[in-house]
Amino acid sequence: MTPAKLNKPVHVLKFGGTSVATPNLIRDAAQRIGQRRAAGCHVVCVVSAMGDTTDELNTLAQQLSSQPQRRELDVLLSAGEVQSMALLSIALTELGVPAISFTGQQGGIVTDDRHSEAKILRIDPDRVVEALHGDHVVVLAGFQGIDQHEEITTLGRGGSDTTAVAMAAALGAERCEILTDVPGVFTADPRLVPSAVQIEALSYDEMLEMANLGARVLHGRSVEIARRFNVPLVVASATEDRPGTRITGKGELMEEVVVRAVTDDRDVRKISILAVPDQPGIAARVFNVLGEFDINIRLIVQAQSHEGLNDITFIVPGSASLEESDLQRMVQEVGGESWLIDDDVALLNIVGEGISREPGIAGKIFSVLAEQEINIDLISSSNLVITCVVREKDLARGARSLHQALIETDTS
Amino acid sequence: MTPAKLNKPVHVLKFGGTSVATPNLIRDAAQRIGQRRAAGCHVVCVVSAMGDTTDELNTLAQQLSSQPQRRELDVLLSAGEVQSMALLSIALTELGVPAISFTGQQGGIVTDDRHSEAKILRIDPDRVVEALHGDHVVVLAGFQGIDQHEEITTLGRGGSDTTAVAMAAALGAERCEILTDVPGVFTADPRLVPSAVQIEALSYDEMLEMANLGARVLHGRSVEIARRFNVPLVVASATEDRPGTRITGKGELMEEVVVRAVTDDRDVRKISILAVPDQPGIAARVFNVLGEFDINIRLIVQAQSHEGLNDITFIVPGSASLEESDLQRMVQEVGGESWLIDDDVALLNIVGEGISREPGIAGKIFSVLAEQEINIDLISSSNLVITCVVREKDLARGARSLHQALIETDTS
Repeated sequence: MTPAKLNKPVHVLKFGGTSVATPNLIRDAAQRIGQRRAAGCHVVCVVSAMGDTTDELNTLAQQLSSQPQRRELDVLLSAGEVQSMALLSIALTELGVPAISFTGQQGGIVTDDRHSEAKILRIDPDRVVEALHGDHVVVLAGFQGIDQHEEITTLGRGGSDTTAVAMAAALGAERCEILTDVPGVFTADPRLVPSAVQIEALSYDEMLEMANLGARVLHGRSVEIARRFNVPLVVASATEDRPGTRITGKGELMEEVVVRAVTDDRDVRKISILAVPDQPGIAARVFNVLGEFDINIRLIVQAQSHEGLNDITFIVPGSASLEESDLQRMVQEVGGESWLIDDDVALLNIVGEGISREPGIAGKIFSVLAEQEINIDLISSSNLVITCVVREKDLARGARSLHQALIETDTS
Repeated sequence: MTPAKLNKPVHVLKFGGTSVATPNLIRDAAQRIGQRRAAGCHVVCVVSAMGDTTDELNTLAQQLSSQPQRRELDVLLSAGEVQSMALLSIALTELGVPAISFTGQQGGIVTDDRHSEAKILRIDPDRVVEALHGDHVVVLAGFQGIDQHEEITTLGRGGSDTTAVAMAAALGAERCEILTDVPGVFTADPRLVPSAVQIEALSYDEMLEMANLGARVLHGRSVEIARRFNVPLVVASATEDRPGTRITGKGELMEEVVVRAVTDDRDVRKISILAVPDQPGIAARVFNVLGEFDINIRLIVQAQSHEGLNDITFIVPGSASLEESDLQRMVQEVGGESWLIDDDVALLNIVGEGISREPGIAGKIFSVLAEQEINIDLISSSNLVITCVVREKDLARGARSLHQALIETDTS
């Protein structure tokens, strides 16, 4: 993607569904966009469908078929964003802000043909650039694109964020703002940890780990694209004009800390395949079966149970649709004896660029949790994150004590 | 438009908004379509937006602007048909009927760029033909198209009927059925004339007159296209499997009658421009002013009032948005003295291919109305229709007595 030449900086603003749910909210969004344009920027807004529109359309489809064709579901859902983009453009024009709306197709969002989870292949932003040159605000439908056969596709989870970041990359935008119903990214979930505070800035890598570990504010896909094309991201409130949280390259961060945030995820389940022969390639076979179901494994541990036999344990999202028969097949596939499912588990993730360079962190985490008499069932660590699997009842207490020990107390 | 070669006869079925308003109705429509396909036809269905969707979208737009851009309004409204087409395709597939939905763009509906009232320029039915060759039912969004700049357009009033008939012409369809919430075309409005009966068949010309004179069952545009391309039309119930009314070339009608129907229209107003100098071109100037407002004049009469001065009187639809200032301008334009508006008027139209060849019909109409002591304010006649302007209070009685004298009693 080659950034197009434009005479003013481009700001891409993405409004989520809750932020355009009513005519009044659409008007508020239009006002904010008008102010940004008046400040001397080209503005591209990416919109989601209004409020619950997508859910309502999905419900209609489900009333007609338990397995609607993915192609038609994409066509159906795409209508939601088309409505909100036209309405926002109407609201902007009413405020005296020249505006034009584009569907995914008109905006040049070209995807592969995997309906309901399409990937953006490229962006042909000619019409967008032309409209910006004509000093129009461009309102672009999020979540949708078109494949090489002119079939309508949708981008799946986090789709509108992905549209916004990809368009920002294609236009060489100065920034891409994800405007939503929270004021920014927090050091922990404030509902769980009342002392959590908003993060001023963090790195793409940190945000990526947090997104993949259950922080609902941004989807990992959009962060990946932002990192790849070095698009400065901001997560901020759609209704209040406050700075929000900047997500940027590591080198641009003023403040470097060891631990950036403590995130939690209780919507997970633990699955164990018991008494598997200790042979090379066993883990790969488990991954293969899970891959068929498009299941994202959060964590996998292989431990010797008794001689020559291992237990393989992994954590999957609670939404993963695994039937008993699938598990049975997996057991057979790897030559195990049986399987166990445990829903009473939750993840505590300690995220930060400094985790790998501070060898004492892991020990500190264990002692904090031990003091609280919280049992760690499983543990995994990477450069940026240490994940502990605990009981659900221990989650809030664990998050609070780790937040206090690692973030409220400066550990650097 | 060159009919494409297909191995089975093509039936185009158009479902109005009330016929796809709920999942249950969509399922009913799908069943009917499936039966038609099982009978050995290629089926193309054209759908309107579900129930009140179009009105609801219009209301949203009006909440944001009293004058929404026509381009954006077209984008907004087009989403309604996109939803219903996807849902119908899902319902068909669930019944085991292979189906694919197409937007106006995908269906090759190319229009001019007059947003909100676009005219179809041509149809490129390649994708439709390909899908029919693949033995799919094609579900096509009515009411919408795309102009040469890939902008979404809508076709205005009667748009979905127009889509259906134009696609039927492009495919050389054996028939085009307009399926709606009435069982067919009637000899009069049954609410006004209880003895009215369903017409088995009538000519394009008769239907065209009736459509332009306020019969709400079909829009004149679609009838004109059907006549031009000789597409056999059927108006029938969407829910009951009954024959409906055939609309066809005059030569194909088995039964030729003098008077086909008595239609009424109370949603009209009479406007008079008084004391206009008797000069050539005056009527043209009135038409010019009305043309600016896109107003369809039903009837115009010019009568001498006193020496050298005429009164010009015309009937316009009740919905015609004429302000007092517009009328004032019209008076100045033609050098008249003043104007009058009369809303207490209604039209009685006597329609039939035989009217011009039966010179006694006009006299019969006048004597029937005279017997009822109904005053005829204005009168106009053409080859196929005689229109009488009466008071609203006389409308029902006039319609009943004319229906009895001209249709219930065989006049041929």
